[in-house]
Amino acid sequence: MPQPDRPDEFSLIAKVFAPLSAEAPGAFGLTDDAALFAPGEGMEIVLTVDAIVEGVHFLSSDPADSVAQKLLRVNLSDLAAKGATPRGYLLVTSWRADTTLAWIEGFADGLRRDQKTFGIALWGGDTVSTPGPLNFSLTAIGEVPRGKMLRRSGARIGDDLYVSGTIGDGALGLAAAEGRLVGALEDVRSLIDRYRCPQPRTALGSRLVGLASAALDVSDGLMADLGHLCETSGVGARIEASLVPLSPAASRAVDANSSWFGTALTGGDDYELLFAASPANAARIAAVATESGVAVTRIGTVVSREEGVHAVDSQGSPLAFGQLGFKHF
Amino acid sequence: MPQPDRPDEFSLIAKVFAPLSAEAPGAFGLTDDAALFAPGEGMEIVLTVDAIVEGVHFLSSDPADSVAQKLLRVNLSDLAAKGATPRGYLLVTSWRADTTLAWIEGFADGLRRDQKTFGIALWGGDTVSTPGPLNFSLTAIGEVPRGKMLRRSGARIGDDLYVSGTIGDGALGLAAAEGRLVGALEDVRSLIDRYRCPQPRTALGSRLVGLASAALDVSDGLMADLGHLCETSGVGARIEASLVPLSPAASRAVDANSSWFGTALTGGDDYELLFAASPANAARIAAVATESGVAVTRIGTVVSREEGVHAVDSQGSPLAFGQLGFKHF
Repeated sequence: MPQPDRPDEFSLIAKVFAPLSAEAPGAFGLTDDAALFAPGEGMEIVLTVDAIVEGVHFLSSDPADSVAQKLLRVNLSDLAAKGATPRGYLLVTSWRADTTLAWIEGFADGLRRDQKTFGIALWGGDTVSTPGPLNFSLTAIGEVPRGKMLRRSGARIGDDLYVSGTIGDGALGLAAAEGRLVGALEDVRSLIDRYRCPQPRTALGSRLVGLASAALDVSDGLMADLGHLCETSGVGARIEASLVPLSPAASRAVDANSSWFGTALTGGDDYELLFAASPANAARIAAVATESGVAVTRIGTVVSREEGVHAVDSQGSPLAFGQLGFKHF
Repeated sequence: MPQPDRPDEFSLIAKVFAPLSAEAPGAFGLTDDAALFAPGEGMEIVLTVDAIVEGVHFLSSDPADSVAQKLLRVNLSDLAAKGATPRGYLLVTSWRADTTLAWIEGFADGLRRDQKTFGIALWGGDTVSTPGPLNFSLTAIGEVPRGKMLRRSGARIGDDLYVSGTIGDGALGLAAAEGRLVGALEDVRSLIDRYRCPQPRTALGSRLVGLASAALDVSDGLMADLGHLCETSGVGARIEASLVPLSPAASRAVDANSSWFGTALTGGDDYELLFAASPANAARIAAVATESGVAVTRIGTVVSREEGVHAVDSQGSPLAFGQLGFKHF
């Protein structure tokens, strides 16, 4: 049933979404049919888009602001992995007749807060009605020095492999949200928060331009995404499992039940950067990690394609990961 | 019920959509998470996005290729109205489990044909599942000389007002599709085709840069969109109704029942360009119309805001348009 408090779509754009465009002159206050952007001298643009559907990618009961923030942040994570500095975004929203104004305002409020965090603005979009589930898509636009965009390809044998932040919180957070992982309340909360609200590494990503030989963001799980990077680069990789950085909450979960370690290395939704770089760049990488305020940890080495993509324990024995975790060969 | 013939989403992208990106090096064959675009020297980018939902903007029974083409073309029409040359697009598709491979292939085939027509390519996108109606959004990207994008604002008193092509075919085509307008079979077919498959005036739009003082595309109806242009420009307009160009099919409909004339001038879905230009540019505008192969017709004059936005008949008497057509005061 249509909500009596909800303004029509034209008013919704003017009242709820136009304020999000205030700091982008090329958005024209969302009154025009298009947005304008002039990349800086010597820069080119990077575009990425992701969609989420109610009941598939999020639940009706999820807080509106966190739904909006996750949508925005997974796109910003893609830009970070390309070394691009985010500039703005276009937003498409499909609202049901019974979506309340309060929910829509909560959604916009999540965007408003994140715009400040990441220094971006809403440039434009489209607002439609749907008789079905809520459906959102977001196109994020960034810029990168011409010819310097980071790719999945480019990793060379002998390169170091690094990750930002900590690995596994997303997958353990999902397990905690579903009640499969139990632990101290603060650990459970911390992991669920990491699952719900990724931290795109935009400050780090743009500083890796010229330093990293290949990069991507970990969304399918560390081992799977490492496989993607190696496949595209035509190389293999050896991960030293003991070097993979875990958060305090994830460490305690693994201490309590070691099978969570496999989940951490193979689960998804980390939105950390995984990248390769020549050992000659190690000091500069440490410096940009400090500058950007994001921890960066060396976790392994690029090897030949023939050696495959694998992880070893602290004794150098290979680990195998299955759907239920990992085991020694 | 899931269609047994349908590949998973990864294969769908690789088999059906990746070929659409073949001519765009910055799309990386849809294997990466982002697209790269370098605007030409002195150019800036124009972005626009539109979404369509099954049961709201199109019917399940509509041909798949025409659904895709209309989605693409309404976005290209927005770019044309900005004077932008289209370069590429991002596509988000939400498929139901029971959407057949044949329908998806038909959708992609519509895009493939239009890419050739308009000289663009698929740069990227996202493919998701939905338990609800089909839901598509498309972000179109074009480029325009820096500082030269056409806007709704900028029309000056004394400017000529022009439209491209013919006006009213979209609204009369909808009436024909719904059985409200009857006539010769070829006229009915021609109008329905114009409603289903807009002709974005991209070749003309880019040539109006530096000539038009204000522009937009007619999607809400000629009189309503003229109102938008005048409102944003702070002016009024006088349209000479007898100058408004009608297609042969629309002319015959109006001859049979003059109330269709009101529908033609107030209905939507024309996707023709409406623009203002100094009389000093008249000869150059005629020349770019010829170059671009699109008819351009002068239909009136920009007047002061106080005179309002109105149409007059061949005797200079004002016409009033109501929901049921038009009448003399």
